[in-house]
Amino acid sequence: MSLRCEILSTGDEVLTGQIVDTNAAYLADQMGSLGFEVSRHTTVGDDRALLAAAFRQLGASADVVLCTGGLGPTVDDLTTEVAAEVLGAELRLDEAALAHMEGLWKNRGRAMPENNRKQALIPAPAEVLENPIGTAPGFAVRIDRAWFFFMPGVPREMKRMFAEQVVPRVEALRSEPTVFDVRVLRSFGLTESATDQALAGLEALFPGVKLGFRAHFPEIQIKLTVKGPDIAAAKAQLEAATEEVRKRVGAHVFSDGASIEQVVGEGLTRDKATLATAESCTGGLVAQMITAVPGSSAYFDRGFVTYSNQAKMDLLGVGEDLLREHGAVSEPCARAMAEGARTRAGTTYAVAVTGIAGPGGGTPEKPVGLVFVALASPGGTVVRRLRWPGQRDQIRGISAMVALDLVRRALAGLPLEEGDNPRGQ
Amino acid sequence: MSLRCEILSTGDEVLTGQIVDTNAAYLADQMGSLGFEVSRHTTVGDDRALLAAAFRQLGASADVVLCTGGLGPTVDDLTTEVAAEVLGAELRLDEAALAHMEGLWKNRGRAMPENNRKQALIPAPAEVLENPIGTAPGFAVRIDRAWFFFMPGVPREMKRMFAEQVVPRVEALRSEPTVFDVRVLRSFGLTESATDQALAGLEALFPGVKLGFRAHFPEIQIKLTVKGPDIAAAKAQLEAATEEVRKRVGAHVFSDGASIEQVVGEGLTRDKATLATAESCTGGLVAQMITAVPGSSAYFDRGFVTYSNQAKMDLLGVGEDLLREHGAVSEPCARAMAEGARTRAGTTYAVAVTGIAGPGGGTPEKPVGLVFVALASPGGTVVRRLRWPGQRDQIRGISAMVALDLVRRALAGLPLEEGDNPRGQ
Repeated sequence: MSLRCEILSTGDEVLTGQIVDTNAAYLADQMGSLGFEVSRHTTVGDDRALLAAAFRQLGASADVVLCTGGLGPTVDDLTTEVAAEVLGAELRLDEAALAHMEGLWKNRGRAMPENNRKQALIPAPAEVLENPIGTAPGFAVRIDRAWFFFMPGVPREMKRMFAEQVVPRVEALRSEPTVFDVRVLRSFGLTESATDQALAGLEALFPGVKLGFRAHFPEIQIKLTVKGPDIAAAKAQLEAATEEVRKRVGAHVFSDGASIEQVVGEGLTRDKATLATAESCTGGLVAQMITAVPGSSAYFDRGFVTYSNQAKMDLLGVGEDLLREHGAVSEPCARAMAEGARTRAGTTYAVAVTGIAGPGGGTPEKPVGLVFVALASPGGTVVRRLRWPGQRDQIRGISAMVALDLVRRALAGLPLEEGDNPRGQ
Repeated sequence: MSLRCEILSTGDEVLTGQIVDTNAAYLADQMGSLGFEVSRHTTVGDDRALLAAAFRQLGASADVVLCTGGLGPTVDDLTTEVAAEVLGAELRLDEAALAHMEGLWKNRGRAMPENNRKQALIPAPAEVLENPIGTAPGFAVRIDRAWFFFMPGVPREMKRMFAEQVVPRVEALRSEPTVFDVRVLRSFGLTESATDQALAGLEALFPGVKLGFRAHFPEIQIKLTVKGPDIAAAKAQLEAATEEVRKRVGAHVFSDGASIEQVVGEGLTRDKATLATAESCTGGLVAQMITAVPGSSAYFDRGFVTYSNQAKMDLLGVGEDLLREHGAVSEPCARAMAEGARTRAGTTYAVAVTGIAGPGGGTPEKPVGLVFVALASPGGTVVRRLRWPGQRDQIRGISAMVALDLVRRALAGLPLEEGDNPRGQ
């Protein structure tokens, strides 16, 4: 019998829609990756009666309940009290948790406010779940037939507590050992349906492997999961299926985890190469993505945000005649921007983006969504033309992605011309 | 008696965490803005038994249930069938809905696939909720004591159907007419607790007005809501309370809706002024935010992403001696960067950011999170020093916000020196 797992999110901020509940999605995804099915999520607010009703109802119907929120120091934080009430138990002060909290405050050079003591109270029969990076400990306790794992609502603290404290306890409840493994391949350049088509028949070829997709604009993630009683066989199936995906979707897969800017950073570091950017319509987005990676100063020296034509001439040496003849949104201008950036920054590579992000500024010949992306490298310069009929932020997002993907392809020795118009547009 | 409202999200993608459920937050927020309290959210997957159990349970406990998902054409889409089963009703083909769907397919120049007919089936006693922008109609039906409003899971379609079809029906269920209005003021520079303290006693001063906060890092949103039977009186209370908030939180409030980059853009446009950026640790983030606003080319000419010291010298004329003596993360360097950018770009204003975003690169004197932000303007240059002991993305985010806030303050004639270390750090 598989365990019946449920998720309970608490707190008025989530209930009233002031914050979107990313915790529930995170926990459901993690549980899925461990091979547990979550059968329901419930959200209730900071309300004594409704919390108690939820604890009772889940206690009677579930085996495992992952509960987040309501462990803070304020009067709104009712989870611990209500859990004790439902259990008919007293609260006890956990000395270790109190010492941990006092230590945290001491490190900040401040005395702990009196109302924070409350966070070291847990229902007497409960076991503490340590919170190494926050004040509120969690706790595990059985209510009726279900094991409840109470965690903080702060995502960073919840994630760590879940991984370190909850997962081993849930694993121990598993009745039959089952292996479960998952592989996520991140790809760019094909639509979801084109990817689906390219991978047709995969599940039949590798029994036990399940194929899924997640669209994280502008990338498509390909998710392979495998489940079974035999570790070695399951892992081998997953490996083989992954190989097959790479064979079929080929150069569009850029990683099995890292972001494209991390992949680009790793490639540049490996090759001791450097990169500069020249951006018009993306307005700094490409540079921002590159520098979001710690340590990017090793390969990124400078970027030019040349929004006006004058800036393109001053900073990149784009010719006035070129701009007059072809305009700033053109193949020659993208080329000149990339080459100008590469020469002036003295880098191995330079990428340039120029286009019309809209909503205004389009013409019949040069409509909104027309973008040129150029890569200048030691071997020469290539320019890609794309049309993305979408919103301003999407046009900018996909243009930045095309720019980074060109660098990635150059670093990996892959064809640069393939998929001239990404995603079939 | 107020209505008991609940939200039910359906679908395996939401249940397994493949997508985050933004629909529930949206509906809860909208209902709150209409003066209805939502008491619980529930999420179940595409599972016949669990769906039926959820319908029965909510039918017995709620007055209004907003249900999303499961109206599509595939075998996974079970909502309509299960609703009919719970009602003990037949399905009927709604001719108007079918004609609408066939029209949509015809406009696309294609024949409607046979399995799409299924979407025109609704439980016999239900009333159709039109979907002008998608194929699947919704429907409203009473199960036990509750009115259920079934809507598509696609956010765009759901939002329109909710606004046009559901809101009037829910309003009609309201027992006493009540006015409800809301005002959100966006602020930056004070912590949530400092804002809370500054606004102490506000609710007592303006009876009927409720004060709330939302933290959207790095800004704090102040939310005022008013509820009552008398339109004029409620609106006047809200106006007066808003005035009082502006008086107390003063220059920290930057808008009642627009983003800070929009506010900056409006100010620059109004003054016919221009802006340039010079960024080190934010790596293009400030330029990217400015250019995210349509029409920003009217006031934004260029940006310099000077990641290396050499780039700071080449592009902004920062002196080698200055860098040797003070280092790049220093008050003099920030000042020289802003002044260099302003002179070289020939703009009214220039902002510069230089700091240590981490996680590496810190020293005891210059720790991770130390950032200098400078604004060069016709009246001279100011530099603000901040310390934000957080993650790389937070440090970059708050630094960019301080830069934009300096421009906003200069444009509004507000003090630039106030809150030297934002958010009390």
